[in-house]
Amino acid sequence: MHETQTPALLAAAPPGMPPDGRVRTIIDAVLPVVDAGRFAVKRTAGEKLEVKAHCFAEGHDVLRVMLRWGPEGNVAAHEVEMVLLYNDIWEADFVPPVPGRYAYTVVAWVDSFASWRHELERRVDEEDIRVAAQVGAIEIASAAGRATGADQKALTAWAQTLDRSAADRSIDGASLKAMALDEDQAAVAARYPDRRFEAHFTELPLIVDRERARFSSWYELFPRSTGPAGKHGTLRDVETRLPAIAKMGFDVLYFPPIHPIGRIDRKGKNNALVTEPDDVGSPWAIGAAEGGHKDILPALGTLADFRHLVAAAHGHGLEIALDIAFQCAPDHPYVKAHPGWFRWRPDGSVQYAENPPKKYQDIYPFNFECDDWQGLWLELKSVFDHWIAEGVTIFRVDNPHTKAFPFWEWCITEIKRQHPGVIFLAEAFTRPKVMHRLAKVGYSQSYTYFTWRNTKAELVEYFTELSQGPGYEYFRPNVWPNTPDILHAQLQGGEAAMFRLRLVLAATLAANYGIYGPAYELLEHLPRNPGSEEYLDSEKYQLRHWDHDQPKSIAPLITRVNRVRHDNPALQFNGSLRFLPVENEQLIAYAKASPDGRNVVVTVVNLDPHNPQDGWVGLTPESIGVEAGHSFQMHDLLSDERFLWQGESHYVRLDPQQAPAHILLVRRRVRDENDFEQFL
Amino acid sequence: MHETQTPALLAAAPPGMPPDGRVRTIIDAVLPVVDAGRFAVKRTAGEKLEVKAHCFAEGHDVLRVMLRWGPEGNVAAHEVEMVLLYNDIWEADFVPPVPGRYAYTVVAWVDSFASWRHELERRVDEEDIRVAAQVGAIEIASAAGRATGADQKALTAWAQTLDRSAADRSIDGASLKAMALDEDQAAVAARYPDRRFEAHFTELPLIVDRERARFSSWYELFPRSTGPAGKHGTLRDVETRLPAIAKMGFDVLYFPPIHPIGRIDRKGKNNALVTEPDDVGSPWAIGAAEGGHKDILPALGTLADFRHLVAAAHGHGLEIALDIAFQCAPDHPYVKAHPGWFRWRPDGSVQYAENPPKKYQDIYPFNFECDDWQGLWLELKSVFDHWIAEGVTIFRVDNPHTKAFPFWEWCITEIKRQHPGVIFLAEAFTRPKVMHRLAKVGYSQSYTYFTWRNTKAELVEYFTELSQGPGYEYFRPNVWPNTPDILHAQLQGGEAAMFRLRLVLAATLAANYGIYGPAYELLEHLPRNPGSEEYLDSEKYQLRHWDHDQPKSIAPLITRVNRVRHDNPALQFNGSLRFLPVENEQLIAYAKASPDGRNVVVTVVNLDPHNPQDGWVGLTPESIGVEAGHSFQMHDLLSDERFLWQGESHYVRLDPQQAPAHILLVRRRVRDENDFEQFL
Repeated sequence: MHETQTPALLAAAPPGMPPDGRVRTIIDAVLPVVDAGRFAVKRTAGEKLEVKAHCFAEGHDVLRVMLRWGPEGNVAAHEVEMVLLYNDIWEADFVPPVPGRYAYTVVAWVDSFASWRHELERRVDEEDIRVAAQVGAIEIASAAGRATGADQKALTAWAQTLDRSAADRSIDGASLKAMALDEDQAAVAARYPDRRFEAHFTELPLIVDRERARFSSWYELFPRSTGPAGKHGTLRDVETRLPAIAKMGFDVLYFPPIHPIGRIDRKGKNNALVTEPDDVGSPWAIGAAEGGHKDILPALGTLADFRHLVAAAHGHGLEIALDIAFQCAPDHPYVKAHPGWFRWRPDGSVQYAENPPKKYQDIYPFNFECDDWQGLWLELKSVFDHWIAEGVTIFRVDNPHTKAFPFWEWCITEIKRQHPGVIFLAEAFTRPKVMHRLAKVGYSQSYTYFTWRNTKAELVEYFTELSQGPGYEYFRPNVWPNTPDILHAQLQGGEAAMFRLRLVLAATLAANYGIYGPAYELLEHLPRNPGSEEYLDSEKYQLRHWDHDQPKSIAPLITRVNRVRHDNPALQFNGSLRFLPVENEQLIAYAKASPDGRNVVVTVVNLDPHNPQDGWVGLTPESIGVEAGHSFQMHDLLSDERFLWQGESHYVRLDPQQAPAHILLVRRRVRDENDFEQFL
Repeated sequence: MHETQTPALLAAAPPGMPPDGRVRTIIDAVLPVVDAGRFAVKRTAGEKLEVKAHCFAEGHDVLRVMLRWGPEGNVAAHEVEMVLLYNDIWEADFVPPVPGRYAYTVVAWVDSFASWRHELERRVDEEDIRVAAQVGAIEIASAAGRATGADQKALTAWAQTLDRSAADRSIDGASLKAMALDEDQAAVAARYPDRRFEAHFTELPLIVDRERARFSSWYELFPRSTGPAGKHGTLRDVETRLPAIAKMGFDVLYFPPIHPIGRIDRKGKNNALVTEPDDVGSPWAIGAAEGGHKDILPALGTLADFRHLVAAAHGHGLEIALDIAFQCAPDHPYVKAHPGWFRWRPDGSVQYAENPPKKYQDIYPFNFECDDWQGLWLELKSVFDHWIAEGVTIFRVDNPHTKAFPFWEWCITEIKRQHPGVIFLAEAFTRPKVMHRLAKVGYSQSYTYFTWRNTKAELVEYFTELSQGPGYEYFRPNVWPNTPDILHAQLQGGEAAMFRLRLVLAATLAANYGIYGPAYELLEHLPRNPGSEEYLDSEKYQLRHWDHDQPKSIAPLITRVNRVRHDNPALQFNGSLRFLPVENEQLIAYAKASPDGRNVVVTVVNLDPHNPQDGWVGLTPESIGVEAGHSFQMHDLLSDERFLWQGESHYVRLDPQQAPAHILLVRRRVRDENDFEQFL
């Protein structure tokens, strides 16, 4: 990361010296930035990117600083004047209009015209002013030389008048100064600055995604469990579930792999190493005689069924997300066609895949160090291309941290170059630096440690890091209270209150969240064995049939929460999250605001599923745009109750048998004492 | 900042793909680093540089990671194996032996031999072990192919034995495993790794200075004030002061400019704009008929006198530091010889220099945007070269923030390339980012805001930033309780207690410090006018005569403190500074340790010059290398008193009329109950 010299001057430099020492402006930093520009900052279309630059020069000359931005390859497409905030920090912003790869940078120069004006403003001595006016006439004539047409004429005339007047003793200092500082004419001159010695910063990359990359509500289900009891569900059966899922307010419907399932070393129920004849195997053991990653398991239906389902889902406002798991059952066609893609041992076997402590005896991993790595990369990318051609625009990628990072960087970049709207979710639950690298190399969203963050202290620390830490610029959390692999001990008691509070936390702490259903809304909670996070009779290895009409279903709460998310922009962004003090370890409170600050939502959750908890939430009126001393209304969007809050400390009580949380919309007082209205 | 590919593989890549996808190891970060390697980290010769690298690959293969370092241009001169600490952080260190420019970087690869060993270690199944042994035989044979001589023979034999044994059913799994995991033979194989696919990080620069850049005690005086009363002092007179200054324990003796002083617009006493005939002018108004920056004011003496003084100073363990102020009196020879280096106004004048709010009517600034910038740069650099040739190795540069930063970067880099031992101190009291940039572009030491950090909270915040903040890697503070330009209001009362406590703070908070004397030790304290930080009758504009034998002189305290600094490595470094809790806003306490942790000094200062203050200092035995529950001795190096401390909280009382501070050497108990000894 460093300033570069003006290219036009590159030829002139003697050894050891920079190309042109007259380039004196320093651009010490441009923010935000990820690894000095090695990786891209991420935003969504229509979302403002605020850029700060640390700029100065020696002495006290005045600078002009410009933010440049444009599509990748044309960073100079737009230029925005930056404004000095304080402490040599300059700021400007821009709104990327559509998804794609962009670049931004900063250029700056010591502005002789602005410096002259600044200097003149503080002059009081008449002789000083006369000399300054003469200097100004030269500056203005120089600007005229860079101008054309009417501007050139006007500036030339101004320069001549100023020069004449400086010599004219009948004009006093004050009049001369006023003439020299004329604001309208200065604005014209400022359009023709002398930029010969401007400094350039390196270009920084920006990935702009569509809004769903930032704000999404995922619902995962196993298509094979959507059939009538005892029958293998089909893609057609999935269509019958679409109205209910859409009604709950989800916008992404995600399936585990839908491809043919291997027969060799197939897993039985509950991860058994031996199978019974009717065992359906794990969908992640991809590939069999019927085909591989570009094919559909015949029991689920045909490609025509898939196309029909995608269209039907769209009709319900749902996008289909596919699970891409780059690995093969031993009978995957790749194994015969491309033996070079696997690491064969002297005994003719391939070591099965592992993600310690998990063992996948039914899966061969690819060898990313094989000689034909180019062929492998091209084929894997073609899997995405195949499903994109079938209308799929969201992919959840299985265990990406067990595939080579350079592959992901190339694959995602190339795909998004052609299809900037495609979204990739990284299913990596591993060490932090590994998860961050996947986000850096291009993943649009990332799974998180949310499932294992349970106490107030854990939640505050983790979500403060996610929303305020350096990863905020590129790591978009997608938080899940459960997945087919993770039934957390907290849920194993089966208490509805616990399922409810974890749902509210996920949906209000993060703009992207998801659940694995119907297990979640139906409170599925038995582990395979004590101490395990695996579900008993997991759908990963067998068909299940779900009774959606169970009265204990928390679908109504989910519906309400998703509605609140949809209606409140505050919940559709992460950067504004701030935790509020409550002197009760079982109560957690936090505020979020929309980027324009008009929509503010305060959420208070009772982390104790058994007992009512109360406490005082610290929230100053000023922090939410209310004048100090004024009261404001808090509208609970779950219960529809309304509370009048005043002062800086506010009593809250939550009984888990009644409600897991308050999700409070701040309604500011407008017009008169009795008229509460929501801004926005 | 990014990994680069192995150069040998650069040719092979098809469009869009990296040169070799088999380079799978990720080097996500290498630390320390300044602006992604745009600027150098700084250390001193013999001081360890600890390097951390964030390295990992997909999956669970085992990496090997190497720290490379060497002189600039030969980064591969040394290679040190890095060790995995935790969380994908690898560490190694090296000690640069002599001053100069160095580079360091990290290379890493997925090690197939180490991965195979790691894999085998957890195998228990006999058939698995047999297959693994066969795989290992191939790995070892491959290592043999890269080895030579006896190692090649040994490895070949081991590979053959292992392969034969794997097939020999008379050898059981446990024996086979032991044979395969043989540690001595593994150590041989590890010397011949397969590094075809190693990843390279960018090279990072390191500037290594001599020790004085990190640990120095400066004494500033005006040579012209060293003569007999009423007479202009000379360089010969300065020699008479050397024994006293050396006895006080200083090691750098710094003079304001010693060059001819301009006569045009010369300043009178107390910065007056009119002069009396005997006024000597400001030494910073450099240049007159007698010469410029490479000449000596005749009233001070000759070049021969200067050489004699430099040699005499060395004889007392003192280095002479010169003040380099790049600016000209109107009668400086440069003005006539190089009018193009100045910015002339239409009326034939040059705007005098300013450093708002200060005005220097007797000084012309250089125009760093002039057409002949190359000629100007070369001439300015030649000023340093001139004095270096006369034996000067330390320069204090006046107002460097009013000269172009690219000039400094070039000038300092070029000079230090030839003379790596030269030290540059930046006299910039300006905005933080500007001061930091000067340090980044090459200044060895920097003045600080210490003079204006007076309360405990201010001191804790500022010195925590200096010792723990990102600037620590390149910004070396040199702290001064006074300078000829800064007589802080706190000192204007003239209380000896205040002078004493500020001296102790400077000398113990920072490894580099200095005073402007004799004003400091003689408690000079009257301001030019109320509210001013200028000295009354400042030496900047007139001769002064000092009575060094005044009984109020705090020279004895200074002597003691400098002795303590000299004897205790803990006070010769900044990075270990940690503030200790004391529940009294007037007591500040902090610990420093030597890099090896053996020398620990705890300083407690009473910030109140009027009243005794007491309180409890929090210090756990473990934090200073003493076993919990054990007592230790605190030896006050100012008073020579010894205290026995036990537990985690320790009572301290300081009466400013007796002592400004405790400077406590931690003496750990050794051998028996009654035998206290100092380690080190």
